[in-house]
Amino acid sequence: MSLHGKHLVAGTPHDSCKTPFHAVSPLDQTALEPAYPEGSEEVVDVALLAAEDAFNSYSSRTAQDRAAFLEAIASEILALGDTLLERAHRETGLPLDRLTGERGRTVGQLRLFAELLREGSWCDARIDTALPDRQPLPRPDLRRILSALGPVAVFGASNFPLAFSVAGGDTASALAAGCPVVAKAHPAHPGTSELVGGAIAAAAASCGMPAGIFSLIHGRTAAPGLALLRHPLCRAVGFTGSHQGGRALLNAANARPEPIPVFAEMSSLNPVFVLPGALRERGAQIAGGLKNSTTMGVGQFCTKPGLVLVQKGPELAGFLQELAAAFTGASPATMLHAGICEAYHQGLAALSAVTGVRCLASVEGDVAKTLGSPAILATDSTTFLREQTLHAELFGPCTLLVECTDAADMARVAASLEGQLTATLHTAADEVAGAAPLLALLQRKAGRVLFNGFPTGVEVCPAMQHGGPYPATTDARFTSVGTAAIQRWARPVCLQNAPHSVLPPELQDANPRGLMRLVNGKLTRDAVA
Amino acid sequence: MSLHGKHLVAGTPHDSCKTPFHAVSPLDQTALEPAYPEGSEEVVDVALLAAEDAFNSYSSRTAQDRAAFLEAIASEILALGDTLLERAHRETGLPLDRLTGERGRTVGQLRLFAELLREGSWCDARIDTALPDRQPLPRPDLRRILSALGPVAVFGASNFPLAFSVAGGDTASALAAGCPVVAKAHPAHPGTSELVGGAIAAAAASCGMPAGIFSLIHGRTAAPGLALLRHPLCRAVGFTGSHQGGRALLNAANARPEPIPVFAEMSSLNPVFVLPGALRERGAQIAGGLKNSTTMGVGQFCTKPGLVLVQKGPELAGFLQELAAAFTGASPATMLHAGICEAYHQGLAALSAVTGVRCLASVEGDVAKTLGSPAILATDSTTFLREQTLHAELFGPCTLLVECTDAADMARVAASLEGQLTATLHTAADEVAGAAPLLALLQRKAGRVLFNGFPTGVEVCPAMQHGGPYPATTDARFTSVGTAAIQRWARPVCLQNAPHSVLPPELQDANPRGLMRLVNGKLTRDAVA
Repeated sequence: MSLHGKHLVAGTPHDSCKTPFHAVSPLDQTALEPAYPEGSEEVVDVALLAAEDAFNSYSSRTAQDRAAFLEAIASEILALGDTLLERAHRETGLPLDRLTGERGRTVGQLRLFAELLREGSWCDARIDTALPDRQPLPRPDLRRILSALGPVAVFGASNFPLAFSVAGGDTASALAAGCPVVAKAHPAHPGTSELVGGAIAAAAASCGMPAGIFSLIHGRTAAPGLALLRHPLCRAVGFTGSHQGGRALLNAANARPEPIPVFAEMSSLNPVFVLPGALRERGAQIAGGLKNSTTMGVGQFCTKPGLVLVQKGPELAGFLQELAAAFTGASPATMLHAGICEAYHQGLAALSAVTGVRCLASVEGDVAKTLGSPAILATDSTTFLREQTLHAELFGPCTLLVECTDAADMARVAASLEGQLTATLHTAADEVAGAAPLLALLQRKAGRVLFNGFPTGVEVCPAMQHGGPYPATTDARFTSVGTAAIQRWARPVCLQNAPHSVLPPELQDANPRGLMRLVNGKLTRDAVA
Repeated sequence: MSLHGKHLVAGTPHDSCKTPFHAVSPLDQTALEPAYPEGSEEVVDVALLAAEDAFNSYSSRTAQDRAAFLEAIASEILALGDTLLERAHRETGLPLDRLTGERGRTVGQLRLFAELLREGSWCDARIDTALPDRQPLPRPDLRRILSALGPVAVFGASNFPLAFSVAGGDTASALAAGCPVVAKAHPAHPGTSELVGGAIAAAAASCGMPAGIFSLIHGRTAAPGLALLRHPLCRAVGFTGSHQGGRALLNAANARPEPIPVFAEMSSLNPVFVLPGALRERGAQIAGGLKNSTTMGVGQFCTKPGLVLVQKGPELAGFLQELAAAFTGASPATMLHAGICEAYHQGLAALSAVTGVRCLASVEGDVAKTLGSPAILATDSTTFLREQTLHAELFGPCTLLVECTDAADMARVAASLEGQLTATLHTAADEVAGAAPLLALLQRKAGRVLFNGFPTGVEVCPAMQHGGPYPATTDARFTSVGTAAIQRWARPVCLQNAPHSVLPPELQDANPRGLMRLVNGKLTRDAVA
């Protein structure tokens, strides 16, 4: 399959030759054909006008139609076969088996949202029927439903070229909600993005959906993304990336004459608290698990455990030895792109240079500068509390162990942390009750709190929460993973005394879709009497 | 009952004599005793530290306990009797019967949230049980629930001294969610605020709640409110007021190192579209209804219909006569405070001075400058589309009628509008189908769309949506009226593989509270098998 190297606007490749750029393979540093154009304000405008034009017809299609469309996207992605996986491998350096798994997750997400649409209760239908005889005033008939926001912008992430990119969770949930999507391709994998964008366009065509519901804009600088976000027709933004990038988008969105919501998933240390009993009981197992979770995907997951907290005690020395052995035996591997790899090496050097921080273990021997090399650093709580640089996320296969003097010291360290995507607690069974205050604190700090596990591996399901207090995300009230992610792209609209003929099926008396609804304050699937 | 004229911090009057100010009665311009102090950064800090300290114990109280507390607040407010109503009347000029009704609404809101807590399903409990044998990877046990954000700030509104002030909808919903509240009293009614704040403190004491869950700060300038919002322990803000005030809070919240959500309800024209068939069928009735809705509460409701759109045609002349007669016969009345009254007179003069705007009717004879005097202005669509000043809300008993040339012209005017709290459509029965495109447009613009009614009168119920696209509110995804308002003060937290002993009742297998929960993707009140 040959790539055209163009933006995709409302189903059509868009000619542009503005400041072309090439993806560079992290495997061998070769520039990959074709060149891709830098998005301009003009192409952004055309894409958003097409999206706005498509909005009414798309958002008013039945839930079944939208579900079929999401499933068709899944099928089209699978139909790309090895072409997609091989291009993604060349562009990201991620192994083919990982990419195969990620494709499965991407396709699975699309199908899960299709199921959610078919069941339909996500729209939170609420009906309060008229009380014409109420005193002192009658009550009108009020019916409320979640409605799509309008066209939204989705930014592809470098670390998940499929599951958090062009047809990833943000796009799947936005299309499910009824929002047209203008995607900004990540410049590290434009070819992968073109292939997936083509799959969405093909599915739209085969399902009779308006072509304007999807466009894909390329670009290497911040400009096309900012143009997208600043466009008056853009109603919301989904982003997964760096703190700096997410904050810039948030600031720009708030500086609009009409601010719009930004759902940015940015940075997290994902602290792991290991209590003494857990160390005694299964220190070796925890050490191995930490190494695996830290080095998985070359440490390029937003849920990588970047901080491990332990208490001084007789069991600590053995645990440190087990950790050192595990990390020394780990393998360096190719990172996503040269920029991330360079930032990792610099960041690791900077952390190591902090007074009071020592290297507990790193991979022995010479490691090519183009590889991410696993490492574990260690420090004490006083140093950690003093040095704000130790509180920043570092993408790559390293973690920082902090030795606390006791439980109270560990609580102080926990209290000093910023918002997190996850926090993890390892305990022995008889430590659970005593850890209640720490658990309460971690629930203030994080969106997901794990017990006796490791934070990498984010299940796509209804109960997942992937989003925590700032700076983990810009809006902790929402998740970017799992079916609840659809709520980001909708707002409630209430119809008062509407003629029955204008009500959508979800709000009609007969409840033709059999939804769970809140009728006069009671949750029920019954029709309105 | 004598007033102490102090801040109320965690149940205790707080001594301060910083730059004292007096409320001024709009009835007779007299300064009312006692003096109230201007809130300082110090008192804000003390209040938020107390709130943070109270948070853990308050948010972990049972839903039944929190419900009883809300009901106790309602009882304490009623126990204030005429003292409260008379002070509110002196401070706001609102008639006693209106204040009696507003007190009923305030008490009713508190009781409604108590009911919501007892039923309990609002917390959106979601459980995905472990699948240890799933291939290629097992699924962990995941349980997700909405959890209180922490201490929040609530700003009292001038136009609802009870229902949107110290114990109004924001406070009731925040306390229901489990958030301590630090309220900023509106400087126009500090005595009313002190009385209601005292009722909350008394209820907290009688229910054994930690005193820090409620504090009340006075102040006449923007400084104490900004200090509240900028305090690191403040997790969210509720506000009802002007566009300028809301935007300033939003900007300040976004400029924090850690931005926090601002729920500001700001400004809305609440356009009323009257189609030709409706005019023919019941023009006189609509004219009377518009006058009543526009002048109710001296036009000081956020849902006042500030814009009326009609189409030229044979029925228009009669309608204009009916409107003119209705407004000419309306009565001037006391506005909330001198500042609002002055802004109304200036605003009305500015609108009247726009070329192409004419006064259709105003109250005849001399009207005291201290009263708000009903008026209706008229213009054509060309003028309206050209003059941005005509798109701004003006608090007070006036409205602007815009004559459109035809349905397409009316649609252009609709498309030009900013976000609204409400939009209203008056149609004859045979016009409903043809109005579908206009209806679709109004659902994009507004949070609530009414048929054949008037936007004032906001029902407090599960299906209400009081919040629309900017600048109506800062966050259209939430409502400030109705039970869904509780969602503003909570965020999801997911527990992964948590020992059953640490799960709250809402997430326990047995479902002891009988909640509707999403278990493995199905909504059910059943226990987890």
